[in-house]
Amino acid sequence: MTRMRIAVLQEPFSIVLREVEVPKLDSRSVLVRVASCALSGTDVRIYKGVVKTRLPIVLGQEFSGVVVEVGDEVEGVSRGEKVVVEPVLYCGKCVYCRRGLYTLCEQVKVLGVNSDGGLAEYVKVPAYAVHRVPAGLSLEEACLTVPVAVALHAVRRAGVGIGDNVLVFGAGAIGLSALQLARLSGADRVVVVEPVESKRRLAERLGAHETLSPRDMEALGDGAERRLGRFDVVIETSGSVDALRHALMLVGKRGRIVVVGAYGREARLLVDLVVRREVTVTGSWLYPHVFRKALDAIARGIVSVKEYISGRYPLARIEEAFREALKPENIRIIVQP
Amino acid sequence: MTRMRIAVLQEPFSIVLREVEVPKLDSRSVLVRVASCALSGTDVRIYKGVVKTRLPIVLGQEFSGVVVEVGDEVEGVSRGEKVVVEPVLYCGKCVYCRRGLYTLCEQVKVLGVNSDGGLAEYVKVPAYAVHRVPAGLSLEEACLTVPVAVALHAVRRAGVGIGDNVLVFGAGAIGLSALQLARLSGADRVVVVEPVESKRRLAERLGAHETLSPRDMEALGDGAERRLGRFDVVIETSGSVDALRHALMLVGKRGRIVVVGAYGREARLLVDLVVRREVTVTGSWLYPHVFRKALDAIARGIVSVKEYISGRYPLARIEEAFREALKPENIRIIVQP
Amino acid sequence: MTRMRIAVLQEPFSIVLREVEVPKLDSRSVLVRVASCALSGTDVRIYKGVVKTRLPIVLGQEFSGVVVEVGDEVEGVSRGEKVVVEPVLYCGKCVYCRRGLYTLCEQVKVLGVNSDGGLAEYVKVPAYAVHRVPAGLSLEEACLTVPVAVALHAVRRAGVGIGDNVLVFGAGAIGLSALQLARLSGADRVVVVEPVESKRRLAERLGAHETLSPRDMEALGDGAERRLGRFDVVIETSGSVDALRHALMLVGKRGRIVVVGAYGREARLLVDLVVRREVTVTGSWLYPHVFRKALDAIARGIVSVKEYISGRYPLARIEEAFREALKPENIRIIVQP
Amino acid sequence: MTRMRIAVLQEPFSIVLREVEVPKLDSRSVLVRVASCALSGTDVRIYKGVVKTRLPIVLGQEFSGVVVEVGDEVEGVSRGEKVVVEPVLYCGKCVYCRRGLYTLCEQVKVLGVNSDGGLAEYVKVPAYAVHRVPAGLSLEEACLTVPVAVALHAVRRAGVGIGDNVLVFGAGAIGLSALQLARLSGADRVVVVEPVESKRRLAERLGAHETLSPRDMEALGDGAERRLGRFDVVIETSGSVDALRHALMLVGKRGRIVVVGAYGREARLLVDLVVRREVTVTGSWLYPHVFRKALDAIARGIVSVKEYISGRYPLARIEEAFREALKPENIRIIVQP
Ligand SMILES: NC(=O)c1ccc[n+]([C@@H]2O[C@H](COP(=O)([O-])OP(=O)(O)OC[C@H]3O[C@@H](n4cnc5c(N)ncnc54)[C@H](OP(=O)(O)O)[C@@H]3O)[C@@H](O)[C@H]2O)c1
Ligand SMILES: NC(=O)c1ccc[n+]([C@@H]2O[C@H](COP(=O)([O-])OP(=O)(O)OC[C@H]3O[C@@H](n4cnc5c(N)ncnc54)[C@H](OP(=O)(O)O)[C@@H]3O)[C@@H](O)[C@H]2O)c1
Ligand SMILES: NC(=O)c1ccc[n+]([C@@H]2O[C@H](COP(=O)([O-])OP(=O)(O)OC[C@H]3O[C@@H](n4cnc5c(N)ncnc54)[C@H](OP(=O)(O)O)[C@@H]3O)[C@@H](O)[C@H]2O)c1
Ligand SMILES: NC(=O)c1ccc[n+]([C@@H]2O[C@H](COP(=O)([O-])OP(=O)(O)OC[C@H]3O[C@@H](n4cnc5c(N)ncnc54)[C@H](OP(=O)(O)O)[C@@H]3O)[C@@H](O)[C@H]2O)c1
Ligand SMILES: [Zn+2]
Ligand SMILES: [Zn+2]
Ligand SMILES: [Zn+2]
Ligand SMILES: [Zn+2]
Repeated sequence: MTRMRIAVLQEPFSIVLREVEVPKLDSRSVLVRVASCALSGTDVRIYKGVVKTRLPIVLGQEFSGVVVEVGDEVEGVSRGEKVVVEPVLYCGKCVYCRRGLYTLCEQVKVLGVNSDGGLAEYVKVPAYAVHRVPAGLSLEEACLTVPVAVALHAVRRAGVGIGDNVLVFGAGAIGLSALQLARLSGADRVVVVEPVESKRRLAERLGAHETLSPRDMEALGDGAERRLGRFDVVIETSGSVDALRHALMLVGKRGRIVVVGAYGREARLLVDLVVRREVTVTGSWLYPHVFRKALDAIARGIVSVKEYISGRYPLARIEEAFREALKPENIRIIVQP
Repeated sequence: MTRMRIAVLQEPFSIVLREVEVPKLDSRSVLVRVASCALSGTDVRIYKGVVKTRLPIVLGQEFSGVVVEVGDEVEGVSRGEKVVVEPVLYCGKCVYCRRGLYTLCEQVKVLGVNSDGGLAEYVKVPAYAVHRVPAGLSLEEACLTVPVAVALHAVRRAGVGIGDNVLVFGAGAIGLSALQLARLSGADRVVVVEPVESKRRLAERLGAHETLSPRDMEALGDGAERRLGRFDVVIETSGSVDALRHALMLVGKRGRIVVVGAYGREARLLVDLVVRREVTVTGSWLYPHVFRKALDAIARGIVSVKEYISGRYPLARIEEAFREALKPENIRIIVQP
Repeated sequence: MTRMRIAVLQEPFSIVLREVEVPKLDSRSVLVRVASCALSGTDVRIYKGVVKTRLPIVLGQEFSGVVVEVGDEVEGVSRGEKVVVEPVLYCGKCVYCRRGLYTLCEQVKVLGVNSDGGLAEYVKVPAYAVHRVPAGLSLEEACLTVPVAVALHAVRRAGVGIGDNVLVFGAGAIGLSALQLARLSGADRVVVVEPVESKRRLAERLGAHETLSPRDMEALGDGAERRLGRFDVVIETSGSVDALRHALMLVGKRGRIVVVGAYGREARLLVDLVVRREVTVTGSWLYPHVFRKALDAIARGIVSVKEYISGRYPLARIEEAFREALKPENIRIIVQP
Repeated sequence: MTRMRIAVLQEPFSIVLREVEVPKLDSRSVLVRVASCALSGTDVRIYKGVVKTRLPIVLGQEFSGVVVEVGDEVEGVSRGEKVVVEPVLYCGKCVYCRRGLYTLCEQVKVLGVNSDGGLAEYVKVPAYAVHRVPAGLSLEEACLTVPVAVALHAVRRAGVGIGDNVLVFGAGAIGLSALQLARLSGADRVVVVEPVESKRRLAERLGAHETLSPRDMEALGDGAERRLGRFDVVIETSGSVDALRHALMLVGKRGRIVVVGAYGREARLLVDLVVRREVTVTGSWLYPHVFRKALDAIARGIVSVKEYISGRYPLARIEEAFREALKPENIRIIVQP
């Protein structure tokens, strides 16, 4: 177990397999042998160079596996346990950490984004970052806890409640999870906007009352409001600035927009709409203190992630895996190192 | 008392005096003889044609006077009483009115904006819209309740509390009131951004710990954050999209931006900042249920509006009054019909 | 249609049928021919004299029927429509009404409690109090909107969300509705405490993860916490002070207790528990602005009230109906005038 | 510096001076030479045996001093610095600590209550517990940060805002601080209830609009509400169950009661008042994340603690110090070890 393979992104679209030393454990870390690592929307954006980060990097923020080694001071985790990794590193000392806002830590790092991630045979992570996988749940599904946790935090920040009328932009893994969680929180009606037809169909199977494509939205123009009504809550997970603009148009008075997407550029927005309707726009970032709940929701079958999986590849075929992940109709490609 | 003079805006920059019938009362209205009507930022913007509304119109949303006639069914207001008008008309029946959100009424009208306002000798208003002026407060100061009430609602929506670090954009009547009310709510430090030097000085007299001009802000560029720190709360009252952009840059993690300004055009905003810092951006519109408190705050001397008054003109000199109001160094010109 | 029968409670346990004039409509009221009136926990308590009110009175706050006459100024309701009555009269003018808090109106009256209610062939109600019954829903089920609405307001005030651990005291119509709505809001686990076995079984059918009797609770004593854990949310609908004491014992740190029950006497409470755990105890009163949503939830089948119905009686057999309603195993007896 | 004197409470009313070893530092602690230690309401209650804790104990939770030694791993604090101690020990690992709720830690200890406190020449405390005293503030005043911090947390939990009408029970150090902070948060009117006349006078000097004794309250009986009106916010700092009962009586609809006092016994409360007025009763415990702000508020002179000091005694005269502290007219006796 001294050497392992990793997939390194050297520059956009160029990923290579390397053999390197298995990382040395320190006293508060554990070593995880990765079983499944999903290629997320963010992985794809970094791969394409649309989201910038320091290269080279080992991508992969959604991964699960088995604990194979445990640091001296670690309690509560043992060898052989199946775990999913909450891919957030924090300092534990800054003003945000002290208030429990660890995802806003002054030195926060996300594995697979600005620290090496899960496209590797082994990953060393702090013990606090692993969550035991409940009995009966596969490691493959468990690795999809990340998008469910992102969505759970967003739905809570939105305060979705019984009878709410909700609009979700994007039917990627995060948007589909937001849809399911909004329904679970009692939303009356959830409308989903998504360009890809197969994802719209999946959204319907997962509980959307109605789906539209962004093109339908454009076609409706100012008539969108007449056709769809106004929404109590909008959850924006598409990362598209057009979606943001539609969100502002379709949110009701005293409505709430929760923004999850990453835009990477400025959006032209009609802020007067926010003022006159007393709208609240809130950012939602990562998943403070909800990872465990998200994992349990999958394990108990109340959030379904099975259909997010669009294919499986061994680490050796990582390039092919990314080619598949680039296709809009695929939601999550699973890499099995 | 059958005829009266009014000032009518016919098209931008063209205002004329007319003589018309004094309006007939209905059973739930009162007739107010206007004593003081301030020219607000909004009046000036409509006058210039920057804010659009249906013309011709009698401008003036900030006015006080004496009740000279009272409708049959009116209770709680009598002839001869000094009142300030809360210039909002609402239907009382729509879903918003029923929830007490009358400023979000589906048929809301603001006197002086889309219904005739206070630049007249007499104005007929619904009885619910008049607030008795506390003994000892002049009608002149009382007419400045409107901007204080706008600011009070904004400061409450911002949830300013003890120890907060607050940034206010704009030192017009609303911004200066927001500054005073933020201090009153326990804010530790209030920084004010405003182009006009004399208004910055006034902000300092009214409690600002520091003031800057937008030019200073531009000059600081990315260094603004290093120099000023990040703020718990930003209150944007300038109506400038540049201020919005700076607001996003300078708000802290989990910070709150309350937007009061009217922009009249799209703003280019870096929404990623909202997401990663989990910022909340909230609109604040008019002054639901706070008009009385704002009036009392002036009467009790805890909010000072005296220095907002930059000049006084009789209705006959309305054009001159507007010419003065156009000068950036003037805050409020009072018209005395 | 000039005379009608009503059931009058003259003193505790003494109810008689009377023939009186059908009430005259005023311009803003409608006349409802009652189809179903449920005997609620409150009706029973007034009947027994445990809850005091001014007698004689026509009881019945949960009723539905058909509109048979419509006042001159009424809009939006027509003859022949099936409606359920939201049995709250308010002044529309006091400080609470103006803020939309109509159930806290300074002159609030509840039909069947301090104004004549639904145990009558016809009832005159203000037009604002009737809600059209959605197609497909029976008038019988519709009359059970009241307890669902009480529970909906309580669950919202509790802020029940995904993953919450909830304890409900009482499995009467309100408690069972709270249970269903807590599940609908995403609660992970709902435990119900109720003395009557058949109601505990029904609670289980409606989604409770576990049920106990108050006797079980007493037997557990200080061990209750070890056995059941602590709860994020407690909803007290039993009206029993013992339940309140248990609520304080079992609520977690920063937990929320929402109190719905009416106690009619003082409770001895260990307030130190509230302080050290920073618990929030909140009252929930009636159903401001949620009646329609409650009705829709029944119509859409997401809250089930069918099994609340324990028997049906014509108005002529009202005494028998009350005798049945007194039996703890019955939840709602329906009277059909 | 190897031996030091401490004051040990052996059993109620029996306190003795001892000479013991100065504690050994560990790597994350600092050694503080105590300059001022105030005798708080809690110290007095433990001294009298009214509040129970494990004896023997060194009392004293409100103390300041100079850092004389610093553990190996400590950063950010140096020898010679003047500090005030936030007397809370927490584990840093439990579910509450991880969420930043350290005062609700599963293993929380308060120095002077269930771990040895400040009535000693030296105290060893974790480095995280010391706060540097701002230049210009005396160590004597600094040691009174504790009651100000308790009050600050309570006032924040109450959400006191501009225009609120506030009732404070108790004019001890916590109540007087709550009064000042409620005023600072914009409260219109603060009424204080307190048995001791001299404390009522002090409350008036510190901004109370009106003061009453509990006896006045009893005399008013049901007339209290007519005489005083109802309050938006009640802050209960007296630890008296009578105060709690009055709080329920005088709080308005949708009002908030924040409970700070420790009662040590059950209170008989009319919970129906909480239900019908939709009151919120919230506990407030210690001072999570506000200690620094409280200290700054004293240093900046916006909260005044000078008049809380009713006398000064050297450690050698500790018995006399407690005798003084027992007198109701004294607020804080300072012990100078
Ligand atoms: N805030 C956070 O904590 C956080 C954490 C992780 C990720 N993110 C961000 O969240 C977003 C979603 O992540 P994901 O993994 O679910 O990505 P994803 O799979 O790329 O999902 C985005 C979906 O939105 C669709 N879309 C594109 N334009 C749209 C439009 N105008 N209207 C509606 N839908 C549109 C996309 O369709 P096509 O595939 O056809 O383009 C895609 O199905 C990304 O921007 C990611 O960077 C945020
Ligand atoms: N939300 C609501 O309910 C509500 C109600 C009424 C009014 N409003 C809006 O609130 C805003 C303020 O009203 P007001 O009566 O106080 O108007 P105002 O007197 O025009 O005040 C705006 C102030 O902002 C200054 N300013 C301009 N650009 C700035 C920048 N980049 N940074 C900082 N300050 C800048 C202006 O200076 P110069 O004079 O030199 O330009 C002026 O002193 C207006 O946009 C108005 O339409 C909103
Ligand atoms: N806040 C509001 O707006 C509002 C509105 C309407 C009604 N209410 C009140 O809400 C309460 C419930 O109303 P409801 O119509 O559902 O009445 P209900 O049918 O009498 O329900 C109360 C249930 O609690 C049970 N119970 C009695 N003692 C208990 C204990 N110690 N622990 C747990 N459960 C216990 C009762 O069992 P038994 O039948 O065996 O006693 C009964 O099943 C009443 O107090 C009513 O006055 C409040
Ligand atoms: N929640 C927390 O985090 C926390 C932290 C520390 C302390 N505490 C508690 O907070 C309370 C106040 O602490 P403190 O240090 O300020 O104590 P304190 O000095 O004893 O203050 C309590 C004041 O309340 C007065 N009082 C007694 N009965 C009253 C009544 N019926 N109505 C109004 N006032 C009455 C007392 O007067 P007399 O002196 O004449 O009795 C005294 O002046 C204590 O119960 C303490 O245990 C709570
Ligand atoms: Zn950190
Ligand atoms: Zn309306
Ligand atoms: Zn009313
Ligand atoms: Zn802890």
